[in-house]
Amino acid sequence: MPSARNLTPKYNQGDELSPWRESLNRIIFGYQTRLGRAFDLVLIISILLSVIAIMLDSVEAIRLEYGSLLYAIEWGFTILFTIEYLLRLICVRKPWLYARSFYGVVDLMSVIPTYLTLIIPGAKYMLVIRILRVLRLFRILKLAEYIGEAHVLITALTKSRQKILVFLYTVLTLVVVFGSLLYVVEGDESGFTSIPKSVYWAIVTLTTVGYGDIAPVTPLGQFIAASIMIMGYGIIAVPTGIYSAELVKAYTDNKNPESCTACGEAGHDFDAVYCKMCGHKLSD
Amino acid sequence: MPSARNLTPKYNQGDELSPWRESLNRIIFGYQTRLGRAFDLVLIISILLSVIAIMLDSVEAIRLEYGSLLYAIEWGFTILFTIEYLLRLICVRKPWLYARSFYGVVDLMSVIPTYLTLIIPGAKYMLVIRILRVLRLFRILKLAEYIGEAHVLITALTKSRQKILVFLYTVLTLVVVFGSLLYVVEGDESGFTSIPKSVYWAIVTLTTVGYGDIAPVTPLGQFIAASIMIMGYGIIAVPTGIYSAELVKAYTDNKNPESCTACGEAGHDFDAVYCKMCGHKLSD
Amino acid sequence: MPSARNLTPKYNQGDELSPWRESLNRIIFGYQTRLGRAFDLVLIISILLSVIAIMLDSVEAIRLEYGSLLYAIEWGFTILFTIEYLLRLICVRKPWLYARSFYGVVDLMSVIPTYLTLIIPGAKYMLVIRILRVLRLFRILKLAEYIGEAHVLITALTKSRQKILVFLYTVLTLVVVFGSLLYVVEGDESGFTSIPKSVYWAIVTLTTVGYGDIAPVTPLGQFIAASIMIMGYGIIAVPTGIYSAELVKAYTDNKNPESCTACGEAGHDFDAVYCKMCGHKLSD
Amino acid sequence: MPSARNLTPKYNQGDELSPWRESLNRIIFGYQTRLGRAFDLVLIISILLSVIAIMLDSVEAIRLEYGSLLYAIEWGFTILFTIEYLLRLICVRKPWLYARSFYGVVDLMSVIPTYLTLIIPGAKYMLVIRILRVLRLFRILKLAEYIGEAHVLITALTKSRQKILVFLYTVLTLVVVFGSLLYVVEGDESGFTSIPKSVYWAIVTLTTVGYGDIAPVTPLGQFIAASIMIMGYGIIAVPTGIYSAELVKAYTDNKNPESCTACGEAGHDFDAVYCKMCGHKLSD
Repeated sequence: MPSARNLTPKYNQGDELSPWRESLNRIIFGYQTRLGRAFDLVLIISILLSVIAIMLDSVEAIRLEYGSLLYAIEWGFTILFTIEYLLRLICVRKPWLYARSFYGVVDLMSVIPTYLTLIIPGAKYMLVIRILRVLRLFRILKLAEYIGEAHVLITALTKSRQKILVFLYTVLTLVVVFGSLLYVVEGDESGFTSIPKSVYWAIVTLTTVGYGDIAPVTPLGQFIAASIMIMGYGIIAVPTGIYSAELVKAYTDNKNPESCTACGEAGHDFDAVYCKMCGHKLSD
Repeated sequence: MPSARNLTPKYNQGDELSPWRESLNRIIFGYQTRLGRAFDLVLIISILLSVIAIMLDSVEAIRLEYGSLLYAIEWGFTILFTIEYLLRLICVRKPWLYARSFYGVVDLMSVIPTYLTLIIPGAKYMLVIRILRVLRLFRILKLAEYIGEAHVLITALTKSRQKILVFLYTVLTLVVVFGSLLYVVEGDESGFTSIPKSVYWAIVTLTTVGYGDIAPVTPLGQFIAASIMIMGYGIIAVPTGIYSAELVKAYTDNKNPESCTACGEAGHDFDAVYCKMCGHKLSD
Repeated sequence: MPSARNLTPKYNQGDELSPWRESLNRIIFGYQTRLGRAFDLVLIISILLSVIAIMLDSVEAIRLEYGSLLYAIEWGFTILFTIEYLLRLICVRKPWLYARSFYGVVDLMSVIPTYLTLIIPGAKYMLVIRILRVLRLFRILKLAEYIGEAHVLITALTKSRQKILVFLYTVLTLVVVFGSLLYVVEGDESGFTSIPKSVYWAIVTLTTVGYGDIAPVTPLGQFIAASIMIMGYGIIAVPTGIYSAELVKAYTDNKNPESCTACGEAGHDFDAVYCKMCGHKLSD
Repeated sequence: MPSARNLTPKYNQGDELSPWRESLNRIIFGYQTRLGRAFDLVLIISILLSVIAIMLDSVEAIRLEYGSLLYAIEWGFTILFTIEYLLRLICVRKPWLYARSFYGVVDLMSVIPTYLTLIIPGAKYMLVIRILRVLRLFRILKLAEYIGEAHVLITALTKSRQKILVFLYTVLTLVVVFGSLLYVVEGDESGFTSIPKSVYWAIVTLTTVGYGDIAPVTPLGQFIAASIMIMGYGIIAVPTGIYSAELVKAYTDNKNPESCTACGEAGHDFDAVYCKMCGHKLSD
C-alpha cells in the first residue's frame, strides 16, 4: 500500500510557496485541513449537480420548459470551474506538470466544451466528462485505503496485461472469421448486409449481449451462431481465470522477502518481529 | 462459525420473563422445542400461501374470477400476521429493540400495505415483501450451518467492499461517458433520445443484458457499442476475481489457531517453532 | 479418484451367473472385452441416430416428405431398445436394483413414449430423453479418468451446495421483490401485465439473458431495471467465487495428512519417501 | 517458458542452406535481424490492409463506388502473398513440413479464395482468414514473453480439457432435453416450430445471449425458461472455476527449482531440509 508521502502528486512536491499561495494550495489540493475537505466536498457536489443539469438538458421535454434556466446553470458552473482551474494553476508548485497530468487535462476538458458550444452546438454534452473529476471523492473518504485497494486491482490488471492482450487478439480473430462466415451463409434479409455489420453481430453474440436486431434465420447460420455462443460462454472463463489467479497470488503472497540473519529462514510474515524458526530478532 | 449463543438476537437476550410470556417467547421466537419449530413451519407456509395469493391476484383473468376470494384471503392473512406481530411485541424481551431490528421492520411492513389499500389501491402488491420473512426458514433447517455458510459469503463480501466500490464507481463513470458519447453519435431515430436513456442503454449493454429495444444503427455507433461490449465482457472478471480471491483466502487461511503462551499472539504459521512476536518457544 | 472396482455399479456386483447369462452380461454391461466395447459403440450410434430422427421428425417440411420413413425408424429403434432393455433385466445380477437405478429408469423411459403415442400423439418428442443414455459413452473412452474428472467437479458442487442454496434463495427473493416493484411502477402497456410475468422479466434481466420481449419504458422503471442489471452483473461473482474457491482448495489440498514418526513433521507430499525435515524414512 | 531455441519451428531447423537462400530465410522467417523485423512489419500491415479492403468490399455502398479499385487491391495483395508463399517454400529448410504446418496451411488459404472467385464468386469473403496470419505479430513484439504467456493459458486449457468436455456434454444434454420440452409446451406461434429450432433457442438462453427472436409466451413455458436461465447463470461458474483453479495452481506451484545432488529429484518444497526421495541433505 502506498505511504502518505507518495500520495502527494509530483506536481505538488517541492519548495515552500509564498504564504497566501501556500494557504490556497492547502485548501484546493490538500485534504488534511478541515477547509480543504470542505472545499473538495463543495466541488464534488457542484460537479455532480452540473452533470445532472447536462443530462436533464438532453431530455427534450425538460429542455423545452427549463432550457434557459439550465443554460444559465451550465454557464455558471463553467465560469466557476474556469476560475478554479486558474487558481489551481496559480497555487500549484509545478503548474506545467499539473497541466499535463491526468487531473489537469480532465479539469481543462471540463470547461472547454461550454466555450466550444459558441461555435459547435452539440459539443456541450461532452461536458459529462466532468464526472471523471469526481474521482477526487476518494480523497475525502479514507483516502489511502481506497487508493490502496485500487492499487491492488490495477497491479493485478497490469501483471495480467500480456495475457489479456493475447486473449483480446484471439477474440478479435474469432469475431472477424465467424462474422465473415455468417455474412456468406446468411443473406441480406436477416440483417447481415456487410462484413463489418456481421463482425458487429459476432461481437454482440460472443459477449452474450444479444440484442436480437440482427439474428441468423437459416438452419446453418443458427448452427454456427450456437457454436459462437457456447464458445463465448466458455471463453469468458479466460479473463476471469487470469484475473482471479493474479489476485489470489497478490493476496496470498504477503510474505516478507527478507530472511533471518541468524538462521537464514525466509518467508516470515510482514508483522513478524522474531524469526519463527530460531527465535532470533529480525532486522527491521 | 457463530456459536449457538450469539445466534439469539440481541432483542431477545436478557432476564427471565413471566411464565406465560416465557412460553409464548419459546414458541414464537424459539426453534429448540417441537412447538417452536411447528409454529415456524406453519408461519412460513402461511407466508408463502399469502405471497402466492397476491401474485395470482395480479393476474387479470384470475382476479376477475376469484377476486373476492383472494380479497378475503388477503385480509385473513393480514389480520393473522397483525396478531402475530402484536404477540411478538408482547413476549419479546426488548420490544423496542425488536421493532427497530431488520425482522421487526419486515414484520410490520408485511401487514401495513393491506391497511393502506383502504386509502391507496395499488399498495397491496407491495405485500410481496412478506417473502423476506421466509428468511426465518433457515432457522428450521440445520440452522447454524446455513448461517455459518451465509456468514462466510457475507464476510468475503464485506472484506471486498472497498474494492467493489472502486469497481462500481468505474462502471458508473464508464456508462455515463459512453452513454453520452452514443447520444451525440446516434440520432433520435435509433432510440437514443436523451442522455439518461443513453446511460440506461449503456448499462443494458455493459452488463451484457442486451434487450435490443435501443440499439445503435450507425457504423460509428456500432463500433463504440462493440468496444463497450468487449469492455463489459472483460471487466466482469473484476468482481469475480475479487470475490474468488477473497473466498480462496478465507478457505486457505490455515493459520495455527493456538496462540503463544508468553504473549498471547495468535495467527502463527503451522511450521513456526518460535513465536514471531516475542521469540518465546511455542508449545507443540 | 474411484478405483476400477467401485466403478462396477451395485446392481451388477454379486455371485457368478450361469455361463450364457455371464457372457451376455459381459457384452451388455462390460467394457473390458472387445465385444463389450463394440456393443456400447453400436448402442451409442443407434441412440444418436434415433435422437436425430426424432428431431428431424419435428421439422414440418421433413415430416411431410419423409414422415412414414421416420415413423418406421422410430418404431424400429424402439423395438430394438425394448429388446435390449429386457436382455439387461435378464442378464444383470440384481434386476430389481437395476430397474430402479438411474440408468434403469432412463433405459425404460427411452422406449415408453413410443408406446404412449398410440394413446397420446405428442408424447413421442419426449424420446429425446434417450440422449441421457449417451452418458454411457464415457465408459468407452478412457473411463476412470473421465469419471474421476466428473467426480472432482461434482464433489466441489456438493461441498458448495449449502452456499449455493443460500445464494439461490437470495436471487429468488430479489426477483420477487423487484418484479413486483416493476409491476407497480410500469403499466400494462410495456408488458408487465401481472406479478408472475414481472418476476419472469426480473429473472430474464438478473441473469443477463435480456430477451427484450418485456422491457421497462418509464424513466423510474428503467432506473430500477438498471439497478437489477448491475446487481445481476455483480452477484454472478458469488457462485463463480464459491465454485472457484472450492476447486482451488481441492487442487491445492494434496498433502499427505500423516506425519513423520521421528520428528512429527506433517504436510509431506504424497510421493515423499523421506521426511523433508529430519530425513527419517516415512511409513507407507 | 520455452527457450529461444525451441521457438524456431521444426520446419526451419536443420543444416545450413546455400548463402542466398540462407539470407532470404533470415529475412522471411527470422526476426533477429533488422531487415527480418522490417519484413514482418510490412507483411502485417499488408495483411491488415487487405482484410480491411475485403471488409469494405462487402459494404454495398462502397462496392458500388470503389468496386473496381478494391478489385485491383485484392488481386494486387493476392499476387504479392502468392509470391511470398512461393519464396517461403523455396528458402525454408523443410518445405514439405512447412506446407503442412499451421502457418503453411493458413498462408496457402490466404491466397486460394481469390483464384477461386474466377469460378465461385462468393468465395472471396473467405479471404478474411488472412487475419490468422497476423499471429506473426507476436514475433515482432517481445516474442518469447508473449508466447510464454500464451503457453501458460494453453497449458491450463489443456490440463482442464477433460473437465471441460464433461461440462460441454452436460450443457449439450441440457439444451436438447429442455429444447424438446419447450417444443412440446409452446405452440408454433411463439417460434418453437421444430426441435432443432427449440434447441437453438435453449442454447441462446442458457448462454445468456437472449436474442428475443424466439421467446416463450405461455406461463408454463416461461417457468421452464426461467429455470434454464438460473441454471445457465449458475453453471457459468463451472468453466470459470475450472480454469481459475488450474491457473491458480500454475501460479502458486512454487516448488524449489533446484534438485537433490544425490538422486537428482526435483520439486522439493522451499522449506525442505532433506530430499524427500533419498533422505540426502539438500544443499542450501
